Formats: sequence, C-alpha cells, structure tokens
Amino acid sequence: MAKIRLFIDHPLAQGQAVPLGPDQAHYLSGVMRQSPGDEIAVFNGRDGEWLARIEQVGKRGGSLLAQAQTAPQMNPPDLWLIFAPIKKARTDFIVEKAAEMGASRILPVQTDHTNSERIRQDRLQAHAVEAAEQCGGTFVPEVGDLQPLSRLLDGWDGQRRILWADEALAGPAQTLAGLARGPWAILIGPEGGWSESERKRLSAHDFVTRVGLGPRILRADTAAVAALALWQAQLGDW
Amino acid sequence: MAKIRLFIDHPLAQGQAVPLGPDQAHYLSGVMRQSPGDEIAVFNGRDGEWLARIEQVGKRGGSLLAQAQTAPQMNPPDLWLIFAPIKKARTDFIVEKAAEMGASRILPVQTDHTNSERIRQDRLQAHAVEAAEQCGGTFVPEVGDLQPLSRLLDGWDGQRRILWADEALAGPAQTLAGLARGPWAILIGPEGGWSESERKRLSAHDFVTRVGLGPRILRADTAAVAALALWQAQLGDW
Repeated sequence: MAKIRLFIDHPLAQGQAVPLGPDQAHYLSGVMRQSPGDEIAVFNGRDGEWLARIEQVGKRGGSLLAQAQTAPQMNPPDLWLIFAPIKKARTDFIVEKAAEMGASRILPVQTDHTNSERIRQDRLQAHAVEAAEQCGGTFVPEVGDLQPLSRLLDGWDGQRRILWADEALAGPAQTLAGLARGPWAILIGPEGGWSESERKRLSAHDFVTRVGLGPRILRADTAAVAALALWQAQLGDW
Repeated sequence: MAKIRLFIDHPLAQGQAVPLGPDQAHYLSGVMRQSPGDEIAVFNGRDGEWLARIEQVGKRGGSLLAQAQTAPQMNPPDLWLIFAPIKKARTDFIVEKAAEMGASRILPVQTDHTNSERIRQDRLQAHAVEAAEQCGGTFVPEVGDLQPLSRLLDGWDGQRRILWADEALAGPAQTLAGLARGPWAILIGPEGGWSESERKRLSAHDFVTRVGLGPRILRADTAAVAALALWQAQLGDW
C-alpha cells in the first residue's frame, strides 16, 4: 500500500509511453518527491496494473514508460449502487466505500425526501478514482449524474434486479440467501426515508426485492456499506 | 428521527424526575430552543426509551419528568469489535458505525503496525452515545481504553470466539455460514496489516476463526462495517 499507485486514463502496454498531466506531474515531483528513473504503479481501469518508470517529470507535465504488468485487470461483479445524496462528507464516504467494495456503477438519485438537491459529479468521480488508487483496485466505477429516481425507474431494464433497502422492514437480512445471481442494483434511501408513493411504486415492480437491514435504524452511509457487504458475500465475488 | 433524543445516565421510570447537566441543558434551550412543557425522548441504556417533559431548563441545568416508556430496552447481540485505531476521522467513524450496527462492546487495541499510539477514550465514548441518540437505539456500547492486543489475548476467555479479518485471505466471506452462535468478537487490523508474529499467534488460538473480506483490499473502517454486517446477518439479530 506504500507503493505509489496512479489512475491514468491512457492505454497501457509493454513499452508504452504514458503522458502525465500537470496535476499528476506535480503530485509525483512536488508532493511525492519522485524523479526520473523512479518506478510507480499505474492502472487505467481496463488493462490491469502496470509498473511504470518515470521518464521526465516537471511542473507542467512529464511522461512514464510502462515496464510490465504487475496485476491483471480485475472487474467487480455487475452490481450498481443507487443512493440519495446526503451531507457532503457522508456522500463522499458512500462513493469511496462503494468503489472499495466493488460496485461497478454508482448512481446518485433524487427521491421525495432527498436532503441534497445537487452534487459535484466530478468530485465524486475523483473520490472513486482515489479509492481505487488507495485500495489496490484496477477498476474505477462510473459515478452518474444526479437524476430523479422516478426517471431512472421509468427506463429501467427489468433484467437487472433491484435490492431495495427499506428501513421500515426490520430484518431479516437473510432474505438474500434465496436470491438469484445476475445483474443487480442496491437501492439505498435518504436520511428521511421513503415516501408512501415511492414505497407503492417500488413494491409494484417485480424486479424489486425488498430487504431489511436489522432492527436498528442505520444511517444511509452505513446501510450502503452493509448492503454491499451482504450482496458481495452472497451473490458477488467474496 | 426529527424528534430530539438524549442519552441520560439516570434511572428512568414513570414519573421519575431527571436532572439535566449544563451541557444537555444548553443543548436543549440554547441550541434546540426547547422550553418547559416541551417533550423529548430520553434513554439511559438500561430502561428503554421514555417520553420526558421539560420541567425547567436554563444555562446551568434543568430537569425532566419521565412520562411514559415509548420503546422497550433493546440490547444488541453479544458481539464485540476489536480494532486498531487509525486516522482520527476514520477511528471516529468505526466507533459510530459499530454502535449503529449493534456491537455490544468496542475495544481499541495496539498492534505491531498500529498507526496511532493513543486515543481519546472519552471522545470515542461520546461518539458511541451520539450514534445511539441519532439512530433510535436504546443501548450504548462501552468503548474500552487502548490496550496492547497481546495483553487482551493473554487474558482472553476462550468461550468468546474471535472472527479475525485477515486481508491476506482473499475471500470467501461465506465461511461465516458454518459458524456457531454465541459470544463473538470481530478483530480488524490496522492499515499496515498484521505482523508475522501476530499471524502466528492468532492462527494458534482455537477460538480464532480467520475470514477474508473479498478480493479487494478494504480500508480498516470499511472492513469493520462489512464484517459487522456479515456477522449480524449470519449470527446476530438481523
């Protein structure tokens, strides 16, 4: 984990030259005191992890040379996380944890009781990248733009099932035991919980499975991590 | 959740007068703008949740009168969380989440690679109280003082099994399926992972069960929430 790992949106292959943007060049030279000849780990979300040698690095930019693949590309299971943004720190946290725990896509939605009306998609995407850099992952989940839950459901492909965490349902979480593998999305509500019309609509869809997360009310960020853990252990790659 | 909930370390019963300390009095009058006659929810970790009417409230203190029990005392399963403190914010987070997820006791330990040498036990205990206030719980887990893991293990009662999260073991988390109910403790390592001697010792104890948390390396705080979720779903009260 001490090793420097950078996400770089550029093809990676044996002997591939990789340009560095100003931010990454500054991070490597200014912050991490790296110089030409030093080696770091890089990944692009598609080609696994590569050992790369720093060729040049300066204020305005620099370049790397990909040496050898150090880890194969590892993609998470086909699991999406749909959540209603909450306070900034906890929203950042949900995105970081979802990336760590192997969500393949992260979709912020507006619900009837959503506390926050807007998000900084670019900042959340950067959190997902940083989580992958920190945790040795080779995949970075895409963070979507904020959209109304109703619109998301209007265009929903029923082939993907939704695991609906409903705080009104006090356990048992074991309901996951019977569920079929395949594409899923976990749906976590806002601090304010679900509205009656949302409850009615979600209950009406046959691709939605309602699940409880125990007798204690969990904060939205806790519920997200807990549901991801249960899904990964039962239906995912744990 | 909008309702004001306060933890009060005082017996609660029908018609019981409950004194308010300066901090809680200030919170109620100064911050929450409550005045005599207003009603709040209180709990003491033993007698369930009570509706209490504010009798007097001022700068220096005040008093409540317990009206009626609004929720029975609900204790979590006999599950401890043992963890190595990390950066302040993430340590606070682990305590908050453990309280939310129903750990009955929280024990910070020093390991060979523990990043942090000291904790503020009183501050962490306050986080556990706040989590219970926020999440509708009636129980507050005790947060222990920082102690060396080796000393904790020296005095360990083998009747309580330890679920040892080892990042070196890449899945499957399903190993929990076969585990027996009863008193357990979840053991989460520091960012730096476990030392060889710690691995050797933990592997030697027959009350220790080693478990992996999937193919991606999880931060310590993520691992704590994930392990608590898996235990609660399999062996706890979810």
